[in-house]
Amino acid sequence: MPLMGDLARRLAVARGDEPADLVLRGGRVLSVFTREWLECDVAVCDGFVAGLASSTSGSYEGHEALDVAGSYVVPGLIDAHVHLETSKLVPSELARLVLPLGTTAVVADPHEIANVLGTDGVHWLVDVCAGLPLDVFFTASSCVPASLFESPRRPFTAGDLESLLRRKRVIGLAEMMNFPDVIGGDPHELEKLLVEGASHVDGHAPGVLGRELQAYAAAGIRSDHEAFTADEGRERLRAGMWLLIREASAARNLRALVPLVAELGPARMAFCTDDREPEHIAADGHVNALVRDAVALGVAPADALTMGSHHAALWHGLEHLGAVAPGYQADLLVLPDLESFVPELVLKRGRAVDEIPQTPVPEWVRQSVRLQAVRAADFRIPWQGGAARVIGLVPGQIVTDALVEEPAVVDGAVVADTGRDLAKIAVIERHLGTGRIGRGLVRGFGLRSGALASTFAHDAHNLVVVGMSDADMATAVARVAELGGGLVVVDGGRVTAELPLPIAGLMSDRPLAQVVAASEATVAAVRALGSPLASPFQSLAFLALSVIPSLKLTDRGLVDVDRFELVPLEAEPLSRRAGGATLQA
Amino acid sequence: MPLMGDLARRLAVARGDEPADLVLRGGRVLSVFTREWLECDVAVCDGFVAGLASSTSGSYEGHEALDVAGSYVVPGLIDAHVHLETSKLVPSELARLVLPLGTTAVVADPHEIANVLGTDGVHWLVDVCAGLPLDVFFTASSCVPASLFESPRRPFTAGDLESLLRRKRVIGLAEMMNFPDVIGGDPHELEKLLVEGASHVDGHAPGVLGRELQAYAAAGIRSDHEAFTADEGRERLRAGMWLLIREASAARNLRALVPLVAELGPARMAFCTDDREPEHIAADGHVNALVRDAVALGVAPADALTMGSHHAALWHGLEHLGAVAPGYQADLLVLPDLESFVPELVLKRGRAVDEIPQTPVPEWVRQSVRLQAVRAADFRIPWQGGAARVIGLVPGQIVTDALVEEPAVVDGAVVADTGRDLAKIAVIERHLGTGRIGRGLVRGFGLRSGALASTFAHDAHNLVVVGMSDADMATAVARVAELGGGLVVVDGGRVTAELPLPIAGLMSDRPLAQVVAASEATVAAVRALGSPLASPFQSLAFLALSVIPSLKLTDRGLVDVDRFELVPLEAEPLSRRAGGATLQA
Repeated sequence: MPLMGDLARRLAVARGDEPADLVLRGGRVLSVFTREWLECDVAVCDGFVAGLASSTSGSYEGHEALDVAGSYVVPGLIDAHVHLETSKLVPSELARLVLPLGTTAVVADPHEIANVLGTDGVHWLVDVCAGLPLDVFFTASSCVPASLFESPRRPFTAGDLESLLRRKRVIGLAEMMNFPDVIGGDPHELEKLLVEGASHVDGHAPGVLGRELQAYAAAGIRSDHEAFTADEGRERLRAGMWLLIREASAARNLRALVPLVAELGPARMAFCTDDREPEHIAADGHVNALVRDAVALGVAPADALTMGSHHAALWHGLEHLGAVAPGYQADLLVLPDLESFVPELVLKRGRAVDEIPQTPVPEWVRQSVRLQAVRAADFRIPWQGGAARVIGLVPGQIVTDALVEEPAVVDGAVVADTGRDLAKIAVIERHLGTGRIGRGLVRGFGLRSGALASTFAHDAHNLVVVGMSDADMATAVARVAELGGGLVVVDGGRVTAELPLPIAGLMSDRPLAQVVAASEATVAAVRALGSPLASPFQSLAFLALSVIPSLKLTDRGLVDVDRFELVPLEAEPLSRRAGGATLQA
Repeated sequence: MPLMGDLARRLAVARGDEPADLVLRGGRVLSVFTREWLECDVAVCDGFVAGLASSTSGSYEGHEALDVAGSYVVPGLIDAHVHLETSKLVPSELARLVLPLGTTAVVADPHEIANVLGTDGVHWLVDVCAGLPLDVFFTASSCVPASLFESPRRPFTAGDLESLLRRKRVIGLAEMMNFPDVIGGDPHELEKLLVEGASHVDGHAPGVLGRELQAYAAAGIRSDHEAFTADEGRERLRAGMWLLIREASAARNLRALVPLVAELGPARMAFCTDDREPEHIAADGHVNALVRDAVALGVAPADALTMGSHHAALWHGLEHLGAVAPGYQADLLVLPDLESFVPELVLKRGRAVDEIPQTPVPEWVRQSVRLQAVRAADFRIPWQGGAARVIGLVPGQIVTDALVEEPAVVDGAVVADTGRDLAKIAVIERHLGTGRIGRGLVRGFGLRSGALASTFAHDAHNLVVVGMSDADMATAVARVAELGGGLVVVDGGRVTAELPLPIAGLMSDRPLAQVVAASEATVAAVRALGSPLASPFQSLAFLALSVIPSLKLTDRGLVDVDRFELVPLEAEPLSRRAGGATLQA
């Protein structure tokens, strides 16, 4: 809400009675309301757009003027749903990375740090974002843990959510990932939906269709970023849900969903990155990459830009953002063309971005890893023969297949099997040092040897490790613990690459270039182990997320997400089927 | 916000685990999100839509089922901007009138009663609407008075607005009619825009264009229902303002604005009635009449219906209204065709409307007219010759022309002139009995004799009277005072028709049929005086509204709205031009 003096000056500038701070002259200006390109000048005053005027109808004078003839003036882009922590960067470094790419605001679900450091962690993140030129809005993390099969440091209560929602920059309830219990009407989940201040609620409903989708929407959840197919997307739109089209490092949905723009128009569709690795952003872009790719796939630039800005603001009720129009915050991009979508100028609140203050990192956010010593023997899986459940990675997606294989057995225990691409996987509780370990098998990493370990493992961010050798797995885990969290690759007993993530075991305290270089080095090191995966640590990070189908592993064991229950490693002997351990709320 | 038990049951119905209260089977259902017609069944539970399902994907069972095959199921219509008082009906009677026409919610600006009875009057109106099957939402009347040229019983302060905005059903700030002072940056007006709770603000900016429109929008005002031309409408949309297309009894803008739907699509356009006489609603319809006429003018039915429902809900943030989708309130219309738009069934919160409790009318709302005795001599206008300013009625519009004529003079005073269609007009302060009278001339009533008087005169609702005879004018005023407010027609000293409006001098306490009959009788009586006007009392009512160009009359005198100052009846002698009395805030 502006002060009266600011408003009076803005109106004087809009009337033409006072000079603007800045006038952008001669550009083609996007109207997100009519999706037209207007030939007009833009007057900026105190960080807001005061008015638009064509030269014929009396234009504006300014203390400063910028000739943008031949260029396009569009609103700053808005990421409709992101987990900041996935960038591995502190917010100041993330701002430094994405502002030049045209992202001027993001809506962040801080559930990564929430699982590790509770509401304290969320408040820290909200506080350190307050002074940034990047506008960071938050949603209150609704599912800490994502389900009762996961072990965060402590679960969030409805009271935690209510208190978070009191903060000005916390604007709604974050993705309701525990969709099975929402649909099922579990009072524990419904209580969260009824918390005061939960004005709008993001969804997360992978693969949910038909009457179950109706139930999810009937609960008042009105967005989803998990649609994988045009049919899923269409059904969500018809059910009144916003379609947040996601291009994350490990989950890419644009190509599948973009035909819906031609079919139904761009209304109620926006873009989000959800989880992008730093090197992915550096190499490919951010929201502007979705705009670029959508245009390359045939969407009109005005539509794609409107989806990438105004629509995200509409869904989230950010009434001062997402348009080049009087009274809107002057987050403006000057684009040289409508193909690359890399801005030649980014104005944030009417000014070019210069200095971004470094995020301070107090000691208490650095000390989050608490682990009992782990030895190779901890990964031993005794086996008496027979088929086992195997997690099947799906390249480019975060859903998995639920496979069944007869594992290789040596000395009465399961061993990894290069020939059939079966690696061992374990998830180790790392918040309270309970020593709880879940063990399983995974196909799709394509490792020939070695191991990779990470404390970045959705959503509880326990320690996840995959490997072909129990010894290398133990070495990787020990090194991660030593670093206070991070990503580590080990081969033949030797650490071949690492990215320390001391902040909650999720984020680096280093500058962008170092993080990107180290992150790239870890990927290269995993490739050197034989893996073809584009984002192996992103793929790894989602194997512990118990709310994405079909088969996942947590520190409590294997989770059959479709049946939403814990299941044993032994595959489906009929006598056991009824005995699958089920955690009830 | 639902209770948890309600929500749990809704989800059980949505899943298909419990029977719905009601299932509408086999209809074509409008998706306002995709603007498609879906062939599916609709399950209703506890007044909300629980889910939609096609028969192929597993439909719903219900305690009751209704076969609507061959019909269309659409959301209840929403009037985006209305002054309830113009219907002359108490809210219960208005609900009885408009619900069968498919209007299930309205957003009302109570500024008529606010001018007469202050915040007490507004609270009374909000309270009596609370129990109605028609959902009545309110906006806090921002301009009481509409300008300082008008005399309400008392002006509203920013504090009044803040307290009104605390009420649950008061959802924003009502039309900022004092557009000249908003644009000019008057601190008194800006203060209102900054009141806590003024989350969204309706506009009123007739004829405002260019940089002045930019200033008005820069103040954060994001709708307008005063656009008269497609150019005005387009400019408002581009400035980020919602276009509320109005068809009032005396101001009809649909035909002029509807080409914008073909040009730009229906986004950010909604419908409103603003001010409709009861007989106009009874004969022509309500929001459904705008939908019908838009379709007749070439708008796709799905678009017109979406504008008439969902879009009004979007602009006003009524997140549970305006769609047939899970979690939305089950305000549903079953339409037999897509031409007449008269529903064959109206469901309000999932049920057919039966009993509507009568609005109670306490004594204190009936005693609002306080007037000194008025004689024929009070209408005498001494005149020494020369040209006079004359208000020129514009048929079908509420703007007026500012004309100049040499009046007929008898015995040193102006007299009405049948030959040139010049009637006398007066506005008499009627709240405090000050005896203040403004006098002028008007062309366009086409009266041959007699007079008409009314306490329904925007916005201050002082007593306005037009006539060809000072004696008849005095008789009409006396009768209005006797009635405690109302509409009166007099010819040759005899009252020929009247509609008593004892509630604040604005509304009747009688049933619909009596009000319509009496209202029609007053129109017929004015016609009998020679007037060709379709809604003579509507035309009359706007002649005192000092914020609609160009020339108006209040109890303080003639207002040149374009210059926004009081002007003398004598037309523009150069020596006086600089001396036009100007009221400053």
